[in-house]
Amino acid sequence: MKIGIGRAVPPFRVMDVIAEANARAQRRQPGDARILRLEVGQPGTGLPLGARLAAEAALRTGATLGYTEALGMLPLRERIAAHIQDWYGTTIAPARIAVTFGASGAFPLAFLAAFDPGDTIALAAPYYPPYVNIATALGLKPLILPCGIETGFQPTVAMLEALERKPDGLIVASPANPTGSMLSPDELKALARYCHANGIRLISDEIYHGLTYGKPIASAAQFSESAIVINSFSKYFSMTGWRVGWMVCPEELVRPVERLAANFFVSPSYISQVAAQAAFACTQELEANRARYATARQMLLTGLETAGFTKISPPDGAFYLYADSSSRAADSGAFCARLLDEADIAVTPGYDFDAQRGKNFFRMSYCAALPDIEEAIFRLCRLKP
Amino acid sequence: MKIGIGRAVPPFRVMDVIAEANARAQRRQPGDARILRLEVGQPGTGLPLGARLAAEAALRTGATLGYTEALGMLPLRERIAAHIQDWYGTTIAPARIAVTFGASGAFPLAFLAAFDPGDTIALAAPYYPPYVNIATALGLKPLILPCGIETGFQPTVAMLEALERKPDGLIVASPANPTGSMLSPDELKALARYCHANGIRLISDEIYHGLTYGKPIASAAQFSESAIVINSFSKYFSMTGWRVGWMVCPEELVRPVERLAANFFVSPSYISQVAAQAAFACTQELEANRARYATARQMLLTGLETAGFTKISPPDGAFYLYADSSSRAADSGAFCARLLDEADIAVTPGYDFDAQRGKNFFRMSYCAALPDIEEAIFRLCRLKP
Repeated sequence: MKIGIGRAVPPFRVMDVIAEANARAQRRQPGDARILRLEVGQPGTGLPLGARLAAEAALRTGATLGYTEALGMLPLRERIAAHIQDWYGTTIAPARIAVTFGASGAFPLAFLAAFDPGDTIALAAPYYPPYVNIATALGLKPLILPCGIETGFQPTVAMLEALERKPDGLIVASPANPTGSMLSPDELKALARYCHANGIRLISDEIYHGLTYGKPIASAAQFSESAIVINSFSKYFSMTGWRVGWMVCPEELVRPVERLAANFFVSPSYISQVAAQAAFACTQELEANRARYATARQMLLTGLETAGFTKISPPDGAFYLYADSSSRAADSGAFCARLLDEADIAVTPGYDFDAQRGKNFFRMSYCAALPDIEEAIFRLCRLKP
Repeated sequence: MKIGIGRAVPPFRVMDVIAEANARAQRRQPGDARILRLEVGQPGTGLPLGARLAAEAALRTGATLGYTEALGMLPLRERIAAHIQDWYGTTIAPARIAVTFGASGAFPLAFLAAFDPGDTIALAAPYYPPYVNIATALGLKPLILPCGIETGFQPTVAMLEALERKPDGLIVASPANPTGSMLSPDELKALARYCHANGIRLISDEIYHGLTYGKPIASAAQFSESAIVINSFSKYFSMTGWRVGWMVCPEELVRPVERLAANFFVSPSYISQVAAQAAFACTQELEANRARYATARQMLLTGLETAGFTKISPPDGAFYLYADSSSRAADSGAFCARLLDEADIAVTPGYDFDAQRGKNFFRMSYCAALPDIEEAIFRLCRLKP
């Protein structure tokens, strides 16, 4: 029997790296080197204590923990609005906030609410692969913007202006995955204003907000009423497995998003919403996590330079470094295989994120434990050229 | 700025009923009648104890509870396979099982894996609205089969044979929402065999399996290797708010579904998977729930007849009755408004489920507490004709 449009979705290559690293770990004999898992964006820090206690308390009440409103519990939506006020000084009505199944769940809602099949969405490469894969599965046309390491692989207004036809949408991610690079507040503002003025729906993926190391950061919600902002409790709040995120909807998209969410999701998970609400009060623990990432980042930047990897995209935020491997291997897939084989380090080849130039790059996560980062640097320095 | 394809998604009217009932509850003065909530498919029974304890234990370990495999944890997939063996005597490889964000999360995966934009999916009316709304948002064409109360609003092979052009897919739901009606094992077998032989992808929604009251039941997995089976922990396992379900994938769709799931969902919720796995061991509690529904169903069937509602679709399973209201009001929306206004009973008008004939029907859930069912009957009997 036939297979549908889903046949065209490419695999997430990082999944193969994970599977390979798992298989290697299982074959490991006593005395073999430990495999260092720097391939995934899974914070090693785990659920904040306050969130855990709130989830436990909700379980103990014996309440039904059933469906909630399609857009999430009102107290959580209000708390998210307060968070936006607190971080960015911008007032957003709680009615404009949708609680979603992670950032992942927000993308189909945003795409279906804002676009029609055949519409074009511009984005810079390298990019988080599901942007393109979800958009394509929904009949949208991704338009990859040719921007290089010199702009941190971030798009600019000039690039949009240079396009023959205006796109219907633009996705920006700052800090970005896999590069960690950021748009400055002024750059984001310019993009947001340009998009608004030109009828281009801006989707700003702000999932790595909170994980920045000195540079100022802004939200698209500050600059544009027509922008869709997507965020999540997975990264800064260290709650990946809880699958809870949020979206700031432009006024005119609130009802379409609500209807789509009711149909596609019914409601977000009850217990995840309880835990998420409590996570906002865990600032001390979350800032300690960030300090750990900051240390790991600095160690890795120094270590990579010592090991001879000097071409790295601006490592402004998130917990990734995207480094050039072309001096070591013609293809980053081969380089990553060698790294796993010779140094027991799992990292991700760039072509997951950039079909064109990804063969020259690899991505390292630094959300692993610090001793793993230290050991990875040690092994990288011993790696034969 | 423009709104996308999502503008066309109709509201879930039951959501408006819920909002109205909520508003009425808030306006309630001391001495006013309690509002009986028979409009939602939210089991009043709550999380089984064993599932709660497992979730609490997972929280206490302090483990990361991070991302899992895109298709879910292997032990849970193995346990689901054992459950299928146990209930239906059919062997399904755990590799063919995908753990999903409820049954809701399974539908877009199934549709995108099996169909191309423009493909036609047949289904009987009345139906669970998201079938049509999700399919439409993904560019598929629902084809409503004209079947009546005499076949329990269930499709037949004859109906498929009578179509001018064969559809690309067929959705069946047994027990069905909103009618509670079931296909007999022979009827399901005939449909499954016909679909397989004719290249029609069968999607069997089995979310209400376990909630049946005497009639034999079968799974499409017993009869067809090309059928997609969708199920959930929400109903029989009483875990709505945990948003966890599963799908049995035909062999050729496993990889497409896995890729789609990695892109659209990354992975299901960790804690929900832990709770779901433990729910399989809660048979005694779950069977007690079912006994309660069986009592409520019998009370309501007798009570509705006494109150003069005699035209009811076959109430074989699930926890819904779909009754004719045309003798009381020309429009079920008006009838439901009157029921809420005069008797403080919230039920759902049929046009949520059937644009054509729904104005003659209303849906009552009987998963509420037994005293509420008893009180509802009392009030229905006092209702002026």
